Amino acid sequence: MIAKTPEPPYYAVIFTSLKMKEDSGYAGMAEKMTQLAQKQQGFLGVESARESLGITVSYWKDLESIKKWKQNVEHQEAQQKGKSVWYKSYKTRIAKVERDYEFGK
Amino acid sequence: MIAKTPEPPYYAVIFTSLKMKEDSGYAGMAEKMTQLAQKQQGFLGVESARESLGITVSYWKDLESIKKWKQNVEHQEAQQKGKSVWYKSYKTRIAKVERDYEFGK
Repeated sequence: MIAKTPEPPYYAVIFTSLKMKEDSGYAGMAEKMTQLAQKQQGFLGVESARESLGITVSYWKDLESIKKWKQNVEHQEAQQKGKSVWYKSYKTRIAKVERDYEFGK
Repeated sequence: MIAKTPEPPYYAVIFTSLKMKEDSGYAGMAEKMTQLAQKQQGFLGVESARESLGITVSYWKDLESIKKWKQNVEHQEAQQKGKSVWYKSYKTRIAKVERDYEFGK
């Protein structure tokens, strides 16, 4: 789903990743983290798609909310497992959404 | 591929879309636009993935480069066809990347 976000400004965390071939447990953890993120203060929405490349964009009220989510204990464990097991490489970009527009039929 | 972007700050255009069922000609046009974008001044990279939701994030040097790309004549034609034929809905977010970090094995 296209995330329903408030009027800018707000923040986007653009997480782009390439996975290892072996990814047992990944889908379950990804779903768990999505559920957990939604309970965090300042969470606004998330969009995700994967082909060979995976892109997850989560939206947040401010940088403080992003920092807290990054430091969340369960999320920290998932991040560690991501590095040791699931991800071949990834890049995270923190960006301030200044403007948005949409189209819908 | 994960885009190799320079040190922040730079800009991201996060384009999230839902397509109509009928999408003849879409893949060719998407590829053509990706090729064309790469020739534009200020283009830094692009990342794309689609499941039910499509996410394309393109990276740009500055807002002026994004404005020029939006106004490019061939791109304008593609945008029109996107609205009239291919897309059910989409959202475009213009965001300033303030920070990034990466991991690779």
